[in-house]
Amino acid sequence: MKDEIGVIPGLAVILVGDRKDSATYVRNKKKACESVGVKSYEVCLPEDSTEEEVLKFISGFNDDPEVHGILVQLPLPSHMNEQNILNAVSIEKDVDGFHPLNIGRLAMRGREPLFVPCTPKGCIELLHRCDIDIKGKQAVVIGRSNIVGMPAALLLLREDATVSIVHSRTKNPEEITSQADIIISAVGQPNMVRGSWIKPGAVIIDVGINPVEDATSPRGYRLVGDVCYEEACKIASAVTPVPGGVGPMTIAMLLSNTLSSAKRMHNFQ
Amino acid sequence: MKDEIGVIPGLAVILVGDRKDSATYVRNKKKACESVGVKSYEVCLPEDSTEEEVLKFISGFNDDPEVHGILVQLPLPSHMNEQNILNAVSIEKDVDGFHPLNIGRLAMRGREPLFVPCTPKGCIELLHRCDIDIKGKQAVVIGRSNIVGMPAALLLLREDATVSIVHSRTKNPEEITSQADIIISAVGQPNMVRGSWIKPGAVIIDVGINPVEDATSPRGYRLVGDVCYEEACKIASAVTPVPGGVGPMTIAMLLSNTLSSAKRMHNFQ
Repeated sequence: MKDEIGVIPGLAVILVGDRKDSATYVRNKKKACESVGVKSYEVCLPEDSTEEEVLKFISGFNDDPEVHGILVQLPLPSHMNEQNILNAVSIEKDVDGFHPLNIGRLAMRGREPLFVPCTPKGCIELLHRCDIDIKGKQAVVIGRSNIVGMPAALLLLREDATVSIVHSRTKNPEEITSQADIIISAVGQPNMVRGSWIKPGAVIIDVGINPVEDATSPRGYRLVGDVCYEEACKIASAVTPVPGGVGPMTIAMLLSNTLSSAKRMHNFQ
Repeated sequence: MKDEIGVIPGLAVILVGDRKDSATYVRNKKKACESVGVKSYEVCLPEDSTEEEVLKFISGFNDDPEVHGILVQLPLPSHMNEQNILNAVSIEKDVDGFHPLNIGRLAMRGREPLFVPCTPKGCIELLHRCDIDIKGKQAVVIGRSNIVGMPAALLLLREDATVSIVHSRTKNPEEITSQADIIISAVGQPNMVRGSWIKPGAVIIDVGINPVEDATSPRGYRLVGDVCYEEACKIASAVTPVPGGVGPMTIAMLLSNTLSSAKRMHNFQ
């Protein structure tokens, strides 16, 4: 693309405050951009910034023709209205895919979203790359968040899976989950999905990233998924590790969305 | 509302072509408007009208302050682009609730759609009026159409049901459906859901309206639902009849959406 039409895809990331985990995510995204030749624009604002200041930067990136994707790192400081800020991102640059118009198009047959949210898109990409049939399979999504569970369920449905959505109010999550050929878990409960929840041969995508105390670790904790990995390994035909499974895919899909956006804006196939 | 602020809710209906069923639906809607004091505006255009002519009427109704809801009767003649025409309806007057932005908000936690699509809204209203618990119950939606199945599933999820979506690619619809406490069927397959598909005591909402040949009927056919009513009656704790169940609720919800729209536009509680 650079050679043919002289365009370099550009991704703007806005980070507010000094949460360590957010800073790590942003650093990883920046590194990933560099490694594939996406130009990254970074704005780091102090915790006590006003909503107006954040909106001003978004507006600037909306108008900047060299920026093809805008990502506001969540969570935002509690004094800011997240919905106002996310709504300010131009839908053509909403590489996170969280705009309700994108989610609506994702839910509707015959409509196409401009962007698919990165984490659920990464889950489906993992299934495709591992040649796992989705059509006609029973899929259970555990969790119904706007950023993972709900869009993952909608994507599985688009792929012709039979989809069940299990959540905190579900009375028999183990019974329902144990019927699934494909499980996507995104709830944030360490080791919740035990061996008894898993049908032999099922495929498991574990989106959870949960810190648990671990005195043997130099940091005093380690990261585990929603799924008890040791038990799942013995029963499932495939299971993603935490960390190192879905996380890197999310970043890859962010780059993919940024590239698609640049291609669309420049009418480049 | 009329007495207090002098506003009469207004619903505009656009009918293109001379399909008998569409004409019947429009007539029923008009009658319902009259019976509750909603003013109805009707435009009937010939089958060979152009897309531009339809768009001109939509634009006129969008600008008319006495019209609070606009409904384009589907299906449209095949030479028209349905998506173009539906997208032209102002989102503030989209009482059908089919705009992707409305569907997106329906799918997202913490967001509220301006309008909920009438048929699925009627299904939930039926459950509420019959004091049927939804929270924590297992619900199966059969069919995933934009106008019924998908929004019904999203609504059930908002009511904290555990939701499974069964469709034409599902390999074991009977097995999945027979686990449900609540079944909403919207596929258009006469008598597809048999007694063996139904858990004893389940609640069934039958959205299907299917003509089947019937030599004993003066019209040569009669209408049946997706559910085998005779068998369902013996097993389910409640089941909606066809015709006369969901159909009238859809019209009631259309009036309810029109009233909400008028209230919102005039800031009337």
